Amino acid sequence: MRVDGRQASELRHMTIEKDYLKHPEGSVLITVGDTKVICTASIDERVPPFMRGQGKGWITAEYSMLPRATGQRTIRESTKGKVQGRTMEIQRLIGRSLRSVVDLPALGERTVWIDCDVIQADGGTRTASITGAFVAMTLAIAKLMKEKSLTKFPIIDFLAATSVGISEEHGVILDLNYAEDSTAMVDMNMVMTGNGEFVELQGTGEEATFSHKQLLDMLAIADQGMKLIMQKQQSALGEIANLIPTIDEVKSS
Amino acid sequence: MRVDGRQASELRHMTIEKDYLKHPEGSVLITVGDTKVICTASIDERVPPFMRGQGKGWITAEYSMLPRATGQRTIRESTKGKVQGRTMEIQRLIGRSLRSVVDLPALGERTVWIDCDVIQADGGTRTASITGAFVAMTLAIAKLMKEKSLTKFPIIDFLAATSVGISEEHGVILDLNYAEDSTAMVDMNMVMTGNGEFVELQGTGEEATFSHKQLLDMLAIADQGMKLIMQKQQSALGEIANLIPTIDEVKSS
Amino acid sequence: MRVDGRQASELRHMTIEKDYLKHPEGSVLITVGDTKVICTASIDERVPPFMRGQGKGWITAEYSMLPRATGQRTIRESTKGKVQGRTMEIQRLIGRSLRSVVDLPALGERTVWIDCDVIQADGGTRTASITGAFVAMTLAIAKLMKEKSLTKFPIIDFLAATSVGISEEHGVILDLNYAEDSTAMVDMNMVMTGNGEFVELQGTGEEATFSHKQLLDMLAIADQGMKLIMQKQQSALGEIANLIPTIDEVKSS
Amino acid sequence: MRVDGRQASELRHMTIEKDYLKHPEGSVLITVGDTKVICTASIDERVPPFMRGQGKGWITAEYSMLPRATGQRTIRESTKGKVQGRTMEIQRLIGRSLRSVVDLPALGERTVWIDCDVIQADGGTRTASITGAFVAMTLAIAKLMKEKSLTKFPIIDFLAATSVGISEEHGVILDLNYAEDSTAMVDMNMVMTGNGEFVELQGTGEEATFSHKQLLDMLAIADQGMKLIMQKQQSALGEIANLIPTIDEVKSS
Amino acid sequence: MRVDGRQASELRHMTIEKDYLKHPEGSVLITVGDTKVICTASIDERVPPFMRGQGKGWITAEYSMLPRATGQRTIRESTKGKVQGRTMEIQRLIGRSLRSVVDLPALGERTVWIDCDVIQADGGTRTASITGAFVAMTLAIAKLMKEKSLTKFPIIDFLAATSVGISEEHGVILDLNYAEDSTAMVDMNMVMTGNGEFVELQGTGEEATFSHKQLLDMLAIADQGMKLIMQKQQSALGEIANLIPTIDEVKSS
Amino acid sequence: MRVDGRQASELRHMTIEKDYLKHPEGSVLITVGDTKVICTASIDERVPPFMRGQGKGWITAEYSMLPRATGQRTIRESTKGKVQGRTMEIQRLIGRSLRSVVDLPALGERTVWIDCDVIQADGGTRTASITGAFVAMTLAIAKLMKEKSLTKFPIIDFLAATSVGISEEHGVILDLNYAEDSTAMVDMNMVMTGNGEFVELQGTGEEATFSHKQLLDMLAIADQGMKLIMQKQQSALGEIANLIPTIDEVKSS
Repeated sequence: MRVDGRQASELRHMTIEKDYLKHPEGSVLITVGDTKVICTASIDERVPPFMRGQGKGWITAEYSMLPRATGQRTIRESTKGKVQGRTMEIQRLIGRSLRSVVDLPALGERTVWIDCDVIQADGGTRTASITGAFVAMTLAIAKLMKEKSLTKFPIIDFLAATSVGISEEHGVILDLNYAEDSTAMVDMNMVMTGNGEFVELQGTGEEATFSHKQLLDMLAIADQGMKLIMQKQQSALGEIANLIPTIDEVKSS
Repeated sequence: MRVDGRQASELRHMTIEKDYLKHPEGSVLITVGDTKVICTASIDERVPPFMRGQGKGWITAEYSMLPRATGQRTIRESTKGKVQGRTMEIQRLIGRSLRSVVDLPALGERTVWIDCDVIQADGGTRTASITGAFVAMTLAIAKLMKEKSLTKFPIIDFLAATSVGISEEHGVILDLNYAEDSTAMVDMNMVMTGNGEFVELQGTGEEATFSHKQLLDMLAIADQGMKLIMQKQQSALGEIANLIPTIDEVKSS
Repeated sequence: MRVDGRQASELRHMTIEKDYLKHPEGSVLITVGDTKVICTASIDERVPPFMRGQGKGWITAEYSMLPRATGQRTIRESTKGKVQGRTMEIQRLIGRSLRSVVDLPALGERTVWIDCDVIQADGGTRTASITGAFVAMTLAIAKLMKEKSLTKFPIIDFLAATSVGISEEHGVILDLNYAEDSTAMVDMNMVMTGNGEFVELQGTGEEATFSHKQLLDMLAIADQGMKLIMQKQQSALGEIANLIPTIDEVKSS
Repeated sequence: MRVDGRQASELRHMTIEKDYLKHPEGSVLITVGDTKVICTASIDERVPPFMRGQGKGWITAEYSMLPRATGQRTIRESTKGKVQGRTMEIQRLIGRSLRSVVDLPALGERTVWIDCDVIQADGGTRTASITGAFVAMTLAIAKLMKEKSLTKFPIIDFLAATSVGISEEHGVILDLNYAEDSTAMVDMNMVMTGNGEFVELQGTGEEATFSHKQLLDMLAIADQGMKLIMQKQQSALGEIANLIPTIDEVKSS
Repeated sequence: MRVDGRQASELRHMTIEKDYLKHPEGSVLITVGDTKVICTASIDERVPPFMRGQGKGWITAEYSMLPRATGQRTIRESTKGKVQGRTMEIQRLIGRSLRSVVDLPALGERTVWIDCDVIQADGGTRTASITGAFVAMTLAIAKLMKEKSLTKFPIIDFLAATSVGISEEHGVILDLNYAEDSTAMVDMNMVMTGNGEFVELQGTGEEATFSHKQLLDMLAIADQGMKLIMQKQQSALGEIANLIPTIDEVKSS
Repeated sequence: MRVDGRQASELRHMTIEKDYLKHPEGSVLITVGDTKVICTASIDERVPPFMRGQGKGWITAEYSMLPRATGQRTIRESTKGKVQGRTMEIQRLIGRSLRSVVDLPALGERTVWIDCDVIQADGGTRTASITGAFVAMTLAIAKLMKEKSLTKFPIIDFLAATSVGISEEHGVILDLNYAEDSTAMVDMNMVMTGNGEFVELQGTGEEATFSHKQLLDMLAIADQGMKLIMQKQQSALGEIANLIPTIDEVKSS
């Protein structure tokens, strides 16, 4: 049994509270174990300069942590005057992932701004951000549908993320918390769709390496967890989930 | 009656949820009407360079808003690479106010870092931050007492803040929400102690002025509200409140 | 008697030299005791983006100190690459104060840029800046009147500033110099108009507090000094002073 | 046949010119098709503050492109005053990859600084950088061995990188050039060791997804190419290659 | 005759007011025609890190212009967050020039900080800054002598600067004002010592070139002016001037 | 004989390899002894905002060094977030020099961006940059001529640069390498045209001075070297050199 009593292939407890804030077009508070992230989606009726006149929408993301989301206080990036590499990596990943399940021409020339703010961190903040941001984005876009600003629902698939890793003690494990992540030999973040395809696969052996067989074991264990996560997204979305084409695959899994 | 049904001298509904986050030494979620702020207090066993060797502690604060705390998304200060003047003004105010009720030599050579992150904004974010930060700081310092890191409790008085203003329609009003703040002729932020003294008084007539009589009216109305706010702080602190010398004045008011 | 021989309610010697520089539309050198500030007003025939098309003017201010205006050399903000919180606070205060006595629609869609550069500092630099900037701004706007660029004189009242404080030795004192400011228990900056109303009131007890009675004592002592300061402004402006509606109140006081 | 006449599983022409510059402890010019990167390794006899006193070495990397390495001139990051997210992602990847094949305690408390400067870009600049940087680092560390600054050779395995992808026209292809990279549906960067293990696996479907089967096809094709690349590294290193434990596996493949 | 009535080889009216500010160890207000610069010299009893332990002193300079020193308001470098190339060029020139006439080992391990702040600009601000800074530095160092902090006076020669140029209308002219500088074909700044040697010679033909003969003509005309400038420095310094070894050459010229 | 075996008036070995990179409109690799610089010229069919609508072109330059171009690794300016004064000085010098031999109206409303990236540094990087940049610029502009985008060839003269100096041991010397530059008493950079006129003359005596006679000696020695450098430029340009009006003077020298 793992440090928090889970089986190797067991997810942490997850909740998704929708419409968490009153101002954004879409918002959720997602908790994955002790990790808590506020994800909001804001509609901006413009696209960035490099996209203008192409008849396509855009989705972009920003990610941040409160200074005391972590065990030790971290200095604010605004105080340092620059955004760290890790932050940039994560926000690029979130934006890219979400774009992969959106029909951008159907979205029209508007931008969906995603903001993921980590209130409390205990490992897996980037994957929780993607999972939560998908729900926030869907809520915001559903609002556009309801207002008749869109003629076709542009979200073409579910999208969720989780991590797998290899620990010395437990072998391949799913959904690592901070203590596990710090000591794992290999850490892999996966982003998948409702129909079971990969969007992103980022496996890293910090001061370690992994074999072809270990890779396959990690993929297998992640596959199971991903479906459960998407069912949480479906519950949070309620009726709106039915607008997403792969809803039946998510329900049946 | 005001836009949200309140009397001129009536505060908004306020809640203070203590120990809101697991990592910080002290933390609260304070809500004042629709304004929500996470306040944390972190103990750092060092003081800034300019304070070293003086045998005194230090208290400093940072303030930020989530991009979608507001009706329109605001650009992150980390993305812009600089902190705005308004933010600096507020964080200086929070730090200065808290220091006025702490016996810094009794705190010893350590720093209390206060972080106020506005999750949702509807006016009065700086005063809610001060009120919440006082509780978070008290919780963190009480923990130091419990661990025997302090011999004397260094907090010498209660501290709370609220706003008063003058509106064209209602005259002098207490605890302005965003709609009221945007249209008020005069806006005054006040920070007071448990024994009824002023710590800060910042009255501003943006494109307007105010008379000596109007000033006195604003002071009178604020005085009442302040005591109610301190009773909320007392409830949130529970037993710990009794460590603060002016607890009886707060209770009796 | 105070450190420089003044009575508690006595102002420092003040001079205002108008048209101090040849390029700006309005400029003064103001000296208040050993504090010396160059204040300039520049007319820009545009308004900032957020004001465009509203048919109103704008007034904005910047404040800086020469590195050796102070006893110890301070590092330039340009070298550090960022403007300090204190500077931002002061420049926001100057701009806000000046706007309160200008009829912005009557100014038309143009910006008055105020620059206050402290050549020598001995306490009260922000209040000297406001007092001097009012004269520089009035000179620049009078020039617009003379050139027939304005149909109505948009300055509706006099504006001046000073400080009051509470010292352990002398009680309530007016117009604090640096030595007094450093040791005062309470420091209050006041900005007032020619007809005796408040524009800004910023009282601060750094590591101290003040009572309702002490506040009233400070207001009383400031009121007297303010009139004398405005008479200095009137002399510096000469004929132009008569364009300001409250000139009679200033003369008679 | 692909745009440049290659087979789907064929690498571009690759050269590695060692000791390209006179000042660095190790340096190469690596060319992969039209992509040209100068990789240097500098020995610094200190470690960063967070590593001090742990008896371990550190390897860190920086990556940049000349403004006209690309078809359109890009603005220098020094002129913009900040490093882009893409750059940070790449330099973190290079550093992390190199550290996975170095016994950091055996390196001792010193830092190897890797600089990868792209002189000409035609796709695959990050993988060429890793492949070249491994050689530059090995040269620099071999110099430390020769000077008797090290008792044990700390490089424990070969390390090389390449890309695979899926194009609409050709299916799975190896070592994408810029034209192919721009139109590929899926792009995967792989970093592997001499004994055939993965160090990094980063597969991305920008506005697309990929299946489990496609992933396996990509892994297979990369595996072959990787060995050829390591033989180029071996040739460039000459005698020094024999210090690396997995040299026999590289030779035999 | 030139635009302001001068002969080709005639300097503008120059004044040097010493001890202009009360805080700095040395300070002057220098005016050259309508150009006005405050030059201060501050003694710092440390040297920069790269100079420590060498038993030598250091002299460094900073230069800035008030926003309205010029006909059009210029944006503050602190607001832009970076120092312009022109500013850097000038401050490097000032520091380098001053160092050429100081015996740095005799100065001891301390830094003289020079600040040149242009209050009003009408051409020749960098040369006026050098001329004024030399006097301010000499005053500050003389104070160290008086306090017995130095055993030997470390200034070994006079130092002054001026400009020469070639105008289409007047040929070679001395000490260009702004109008002349804007239209000159060639502009040369010269820094010379009391014994007639060059310290800096910077001749520039912006969109033009100059011949060997024109160069010699410019040198000749500058030579005369330089002596007059040094006599102004001598008058401003009074008694202190006699500490400088080349005083007799300056007097006799 | 000098440290590298040269006579006092002897240039280092120089090569100019044209069309060094495939993307830029013009590019060279210039080597001067051990100094190696990649110079590129990029055509941008716009001019900067301050030049718009004037019917003239613009030439601007950027300069940088690879971190390990030098004996000690230098920190990247992008990492520091700001460009150093030395860099700015050099890039301003390069741009200004090139503009002096181009008929900007004949160039039309377009910008030539020059990038000089020092791959290896051994003294004289700024003069090598100018010499190389002239060739790169000429190649790029000749391409515009060939494409009929220009009706008149806008380059009106050759342009090259070198350094002269005074060393304690050898007196006046030409084309200083790094070792010589570090110990020279006087260092002078010269930029000249094909018809023998000066464009820039920057003589500096760091902690030293120089006499009128020494200046003349330096000019004489530079004059000879300059012609040889221009013959190298002519060879590199081949046919294109004949488009430059002063080609005969360069050939005959």
